[in-house]
Amino acid sequence: MDDGPVQLAGRLQALALAAGISVGTAESCTGGLVGHAITAHAGSSEYYRGGVISYSDALKRSLLGVPDETLQAHGAVSAQVAVAMAEGARERLDCDYAVAVTGVAGPGGGTEAKPVGLTYVAVAGPTGSSVQRHAWDGDRTGNKERSAMAALGLLIEAIGAGQP
Amino acid sequence: MDDGPVQLAGRLQALALAAGISVGTAESCTGGLVGHAITAHAGSSEYYRGGVISYSDALKRSLLGVPDETLQAHGAVSAQVAVAMAEGARERLDCDYAVAVTGVAGPGGGTEAKPVGLTYVAVAGPTGSSVQRHAWDGDRTGNKERSAMAALGLLIEAIGAGQP
Repeated sequence: MDDGPVQLAGRLQALALAAGISVGTAESCTGGLVGHAITAHAGSSEYYRGGVISYSDALKRSLLGVPDETLQAHGAVSAQVAVAMAEGARERLDCDYAVAVTGVAGPGGGTEAKPVGLTYVAVAGPTGSSVQRHAWDGDRTGNKERSAMAALGLLIEAIGAGQP
Repeated sequence: MDDGPVQLAGRLQALALAAGISVGTAESCTGGLVGHAITAHAGSSEYYRGGVISYSDALKRSLLGVPDETLQAHGAVSAQVAVAMAEGARERLDCDYAVAVTGVAGPGGGTEAKPVGLTYVAVAGPTGSSVQRHAWDGDRTGNKERSAMAALGLLIEAIGAGQP
């Protein structure tokens, strides 16, 4: 079920090694799938530093330095928290680029304002951060997979754009 | 390819929820697969706090507090580092039980003393820690999967033993 993420992670590895940059991950709803896809490839330790699976809000604060005010004001599934996770990961994991993903994987946990499938992915790099909003309509497995692919895609895009 | 870990994670979830305990993960060679398997199950956020993917030695030190002397003396793939990772994770992830896994997934990275497939899994709980040594003979994908299953199995065993 991880073919999509693993394939994208192969493209990421080629790009990161060619550019000589390091990468880290901060995962909430994907729960480690992004790291698993990255480390499916031999040689990934040459550019992948590691990651944080900040499933609880407490770990988003303690391991990634996401401000409590940001969590309180916008909720864990928000563009603001995704960016804070990516920027915190970039600093704490000591890497050139960090990607973050936070979303409602389902089937529980959805609300009218934040339905199942709502997901934010963010990337932080040397020249700044960017964030994307997605609304998936799959089951838990499908939403995790699409979120992981979106995170890897955004990372590939950012690294590609930063390397003329 | 994750059916085995996902199935074991289902047993872990039933046990953890029944016992009312929380769990965290510290992964090196599995790269996030243990967390991915745990979070494949709806309701996992009720007991899973999160984890650290400490792929580099630097992150084993900074995120998990593994002493540099332990890494220098025994190497990253050792019983001593596995236990230090589990104990560090239990403290830093604020959970009742933490499991750690460190190994040589392959195909590169092996030596005569520490061949491809050598893996240590450790668990830290309220009453102490324990560690297991394994020597897998699979490819990278298979070694990651078997290491994840060993980690989940050890966690299940420890939680079961701690709950009379």
